[in-house]
Amino acid sequence: MPVRALWYARGTLSILDQRALPGRTVVRHLRTLRQTAEAIRTLAVRGAPSIGVAAAYGMVLGQREGRFSPDRAAALLRATRPTAVDLFVGIETVRRAWVAGEDVVRAADDYRARIVEECHRIGTAGAPLLRSAERVLTHCNAGALATVEWGTALAPIRVARDRGAHLFVWVDETRPLLQGSRLTAWELARERIPHAVIADNAAGHFLRTGQVDAILVGADRIARNGDFANKIGTYEKAVVAHENRVPFYVAAPWSTFDVARATGAAIPVEERAEHEVLTLTGRATAPARSHARNPAFDVTPARYVTAFVTPDGVVRPARLAGALRARARRASRA
Amino acid sequence: MPVRALWYARGTLSILDQRALPGRTVVRHLRTLRQTAEAIRTLAVRGAPSIGVAAAYGMVLGQREGRFSPDRAAALLRATRPTAVDLFVGIETVRRAWVAGEDVVRAADDYRARIVEECHRIGTAGAPLLRSAERVLTHCNAGALATVEWGTALAPIRVARDRGAHLFVWVDETRPLLQGSRLTAWELARERIPHAVIADNAAGHFLRTGQVDAILVGADRIARNGDFANKIGTYEKAVVAHENRVPFYVAAPWSTFDVARATGAAIPVEERAEHEVLTLTGRATAPARSHARNPAFDVTPARYVTAFVTPDGVVRPARLAGALRARARRASRA
Repeated sequence: MPVRALWYARGTLSILDQRALPGRTVVRHLRTLRQTAEAIRTLAVRGAPSIGVAAAYGMVLGQREGRFSPDRAAALLRATRPTAVDLFVGIETVRRAWVAGEDVVRAADDYRARIVEECHRIGTAGAPLLRSAERVLTHCNAGALATVEWGTALAPIRVARDRGAHLFVWVDETRPLLQGSRLTAWELARERIPHAVIADNAAGHFLRTGQVDAILVGADRIARNGDFANKIGTYEKAVVAHENRVPFYVAAPWSTFDVARATGAAIPVEERAEHEVLTLTGRATAPARSHARNPAFDVTPARYVTAFVTPDGVVRPARLAGALRARARRASRA
Repeated sequence: MPVRALWYARGTLSILDQRALPGRTVVRHLRTLRQTAEAIRTLAVRGAPSIGVAAAYGMVLGQREGRFSPDRAAALLRATRPTAVDLFVGIETVRRAWVAGEDVVRAADDYRARIVEECHRIGTAGAPLLRSAERVLTHCNAGALATVEWGTALAPIRVARDRGAHLFVWVDETRPLLQGSRLTAWELARERIPHAVIADNAAGHFLRTGQVDAILVGADRIARNGDFANKIGTYEKAVVAHENRVPFYVAAPWSTFDVARATGAAIPVEERAEHEVLTLTGRATAPARSHARNPAFDVTPARYVTAFVTPDGVVRPARLAGALRARARRASRA
């Protein structure tokens, strides 16, 4: 059975609690907007496309509760996390339907369906890139958990596997919250896709010694010029891949492209609590007197990106602005 | 009181057990060669200069036990860890004294004293580099714990601090074994040197956004051409520092320079057990079905090194071979 990160029915948003994985499979049932906001803030649900869909249903729950205006509901959900643009897109999609008196459940369902369908098309578009790239490295979790189904970075890997490719995946463990070893490895182990977890520090060693054929990651927000934010550590991998002439691909649905931001300098980077760095699985890893800094994301300049894998095909950074304009023209005509 | 990683008296080598830090201060008393070998293998004592000194005293204990030949004793200690060349230098220094019928305790004491004195000179040589570099990033632990006293990377920081500099240290936590957050942060917290622990993934972010003035690391083995092995992750930091024009310094006593290796390709890289990556203090961080790869070191090409900080001054990579030849000539004349 494929992984599903969340599903909605009759006033309840059910989510696979990503904090409990890989040890336990816990489903949480959210019945209010505030519960949904809390689930997003605490990373029970995470991954840019998944939090966009969760927030869309959070708006649905808010409307059902009958005590929020559309703007108040949107404001509460927007305040959860700053970096992933999908969050704002999911919220806005349902807010508009709400204001227009349309069916908000249908608006959220359509948004979810579009994300899932776009991720599948990312898989189809990206799979051919993996013909000559059998050893793929990925960072964080850009799998089904992060995107409701399929994944962004993992979608081409799944489609290539379904077409008979024999792939091996290097999984960066992705400190501080270990989304790689906890979540990506869980998805791969479940589907018996060969993989090895590595300390984030080891990626460079395997890149330099010719043991990585491509890097494939997701994104939390992509500016018009192709600069993009993704999980902390992505920038280092991109620079070291570039230095070693290993292709570096960024896979994302259209909701992750933020045409309102000209460059990465305009992307807000969330800084999270120190304790995420000073502890590991709940235990202190540093002296009580030590402090930490904990940026959750970094921004990678477009020059390190070989190509973006979009639902409509593979796009080089230099052609991204044009592709986004063409897409906007099609959308305004539709 | 300054940190001391180990000390020897009357048939007992006492070590600060580095596995218990920062939570507990545990001193272990080693009375046999095999106990010493086990302490090195299990990282109770670690850091290239410290394991060289520990192994030198391990030879002393082996001689006292009276059941090993000098060669057998040396072979047992050599088999503990492959990458740090200091280990072999420390062993060989005492083996020669033993074979020549000289006082082995004195040979080991002299070796220890030379390492400590060279580390202090590294501090004096490196401190001026930190005049215009107030925010220094370091990786792993190249402090007193790694070098008996003073440290290699931390020695210039300590000397600069003693001269009144106001430094701030970025501490890479250094997965998988967290020598940064456990050991370097412990040394800095003890001396109240301002610092922040960061996930290894975050170093690139702080480099790119202009928040790091220099990187200072130790080394486990330096080839004649300046390629060097150090804790896994060092290579990534060096590449990203180079990309951002941030100076990258490697501090080491002469025992770490291996004139027998022409380039980094000849340096053996230790691969340690998977469980170091897949668990933390017994708790799984990945699915039971997942595997891991765990290279303990990586090799950084000399072109990413701004300069080596040696006991005799700061040496650019292009001048390293000449400096090593001059030093060998001085040694053969002495």
